[in-house]
Amino acid sequence: MQQQKAPSPELIFSLFTAYQQSAALKGAVDLELFTAIGEGNKDVKAIATRCKASERGIRTLADYLTVAGLLTKSGGNYDLTPDSAMFLDKRSPAYIGSAGQFLTAPELMKGFADIAGTVRKGGTLAAGDGTMEPDNPMWVEFAKGMAPMMMPAAQAIPEVAGTTNQAVKVLDIAAGHGLFGIMMAVRNPSAQIVAVDWAKVLNVAEENAKKFGVAARWRRLPGDGNAFTVDFGAGYDVALLTNFLHHFDAATCVSILKKVHAALKPGGRALTLEFVPNADRVSPPVPAQFSLIMLAGTRGGDAYTFAEFDEMFKNAGFKKSEVHDLPGLPQQVITSHA
Amino acid sequence: MQQQKAPSPELIFSLFTAYQQSAALKGAVDLELFTAIGEGNKDVKAIATRCKASERGIRTLADYLTVAGLLTKSGGNYDLTPDSAMFLDKRSPAYIGSAGQFLTAPELMKGFADIAGTVRKGGTLAAGDGTMEPDNPMWVEFAKGMAPMMMPAAQAIPEVAGTTNQAVKVLDIAAGHGLFGIMMAVRNPSAQIVAVDWAKVLNVAEENAKKFGVAARWRRLPGDGNAFTVDFGAGYDVALLTNFLHHFDAATCVSILKKVHAALKPGGRALTLEFVPNADRVSPPVPAQFSLIMLAGTRGGDAYTFAEFDEMFKNAGFKKSEVHDLPGLPQQVITSHA
Repeated sequence: MQQQKAPSPELIFSLFTAYQQSAALKGAVDLELFTAIGEGNKDVKAIATRCKASERGIRTLADYLTVAGLLTKSGGNYDLTPDSAMFLDKRSPAYIGSAGQFLTAPELMKGFADIAGTVRKGGTLAAGDGTMEPDNPMWVEFAKGMAPMMMPAAQAIPEVAGTTNQAVKVLDIAAGHGLFGIMMAVRNPSAQIVAVDWAKVLNVAEENAKKFGVAARWRRLPGDGNAFTVDFGAGYDVALLTNFLHHFDAATCVSILKKVHAALKPGGRALTLEFVPNADRVSPPVPAQFSLIMLAGTRGGDAYTFAEFDEMFKNAGFKKSEVHDLPGLPQQVITSHA
Repeated sequence: MQQQKAPSPELIFSLFTAYQQSAALKGAVDLELFTAIGEGNKDVKAIATRCKASERGIRTLADYLTVAGLLTKSGGNYDLTPDSAMFLDKRSPAYIGSAGQFLTAPELMKGFADIAGTVRKGGTLAAGDGTMEPDNPMWVEFAKGMAPMMMPAAQAIPEVAGTTNQAVKVLDIAAGHGLFGIMMAVRNPSAQIVAVDWAKVLNVAEENAKKFGVAARWRRLPGDGNAFTVDFGAGYDVALLTNFLHHFDAATCVSILKKVHAALKPGGRALTLEFVPNADRVSPPVPAQFSLIMLAGTRGGDAYTFAEFDEMFKNAGFKKSEVHDLPGLPQQVITSHA
């Protein structure tokens, strides 16, 4: 009992209080604390002035974030870490502070208010389809906030697709911020993108298509709307299913995949970006824990294993599927041949 | 940029979503998931039956907690870790699941709803004195919930006091669950304990005094009430200030310490249990981060360094203070000589 490896309540205490970490980081992003430090405001007084905040509050928050690993402190001076300099200083092109607005949005957090009740029921306690309700405004926030965080994956997918040198017609399903299709168009000047999502969400994607100079080769399906009900048309070389299937149960996934299969040319492929846990479902950490977000927010969604995806695609008429790592990223791409 | 140490959004993502860890652990405690597994329910079906929950929900939650380090998984079977077996199985005498009820209480979490606003202001956004409002019912929850988590510290303090062999009169200020004074009495059959706290809180302590068989040497001050206004009496050998001073600004601490000094015999000592960060304020992790809890919940509280405590005690008339580690625990004891 007195040995080094004796049981300790430390991990339990840190998990019970982990919500404070989210709150501290969100608060720092709201205050532009990282940007202030990146601009050269290094001590409590200078940061407090820049952030229009109390010195007591800034000192406590900056110390907290130093312990959390997002700042360094030397003498009385704080500095950014490589992570916070790249991702939390608003002046950085890779700034992802806005992702925090989505990840800590009341709508998303509400799903975690009663996990015991959620586990008893086996799905979200929210009314109807939870976060999947039509035109849920959360997805406009998502499209705006999560785009920068998804950029590395969006940039990696054209390589996996291997279609950077040929004229391809790409269907971008539940396009959100649109970056996945847009990066296909950026990388391949002959690619034509057709994006599907709720109208208000696609307004965000349309802005992004303009911003990246590919608006002429990017279009919305007439009428926009729900991927389950809208007519995709046909003759696509590639269908993108990025961060979409995890919101639904397997039967619902198969139904949409049949529709996707019908929209693809013979020899066409679906590219599915997903959190894919190993068969043990407890590794790697990020994909394995993603399942709880789906339990909390959806009726039947999940983080599916590759074997589960493979079966869904087969049941929808696809021939075979392969899984590809995206180096340094927590998600994988599954390529499925129509 | 392609090296191993390239900046990564991983830490930032994990901090933004850390609230999900607290929610998952709270949910598992509410469901008695750890107790169920400890009783021998190892697979999803058996655990779900015992917890009266869906299999989908149990599988997702148990996998999540496996990744979090509180369960192991082998084949389809889950098992407790040494930490969860000792602290999260209700049948264990060291069970601290109830601490989670306090650490995730809405009253405490509310303080973290707007950290940006809290930092701007430099103190709690709650009305009045925040968690220090008289008879705040949160402290009854605290007295009930946190007692098991405080037990190791309560058991360590009599050794630090070094008064286990002599008749001593002990003043237990803001006694809460009462365990600190009670353990002094348990360890020293000649010790007499006088406890101060709000009346409803002391009802919890009184129960504990009976439970540990020291009720005959344990009493409440007539009238109970606020440590700032109640008459302590005089002639104490030891005054206990456990997890109390961190709620107040330094001037307020000095005012209560003057009162404590006046209540002690010449040669008497104050024993202060606290989260004491190093002078850098960013180590050790738990005491350093504790400051944010005080910012969020109080008007002027803090995690004070030893130098700050030493100065407060000197300003209140104490001669000198020393700091003592409690092996394996995140808190320290400061001994101050009257």
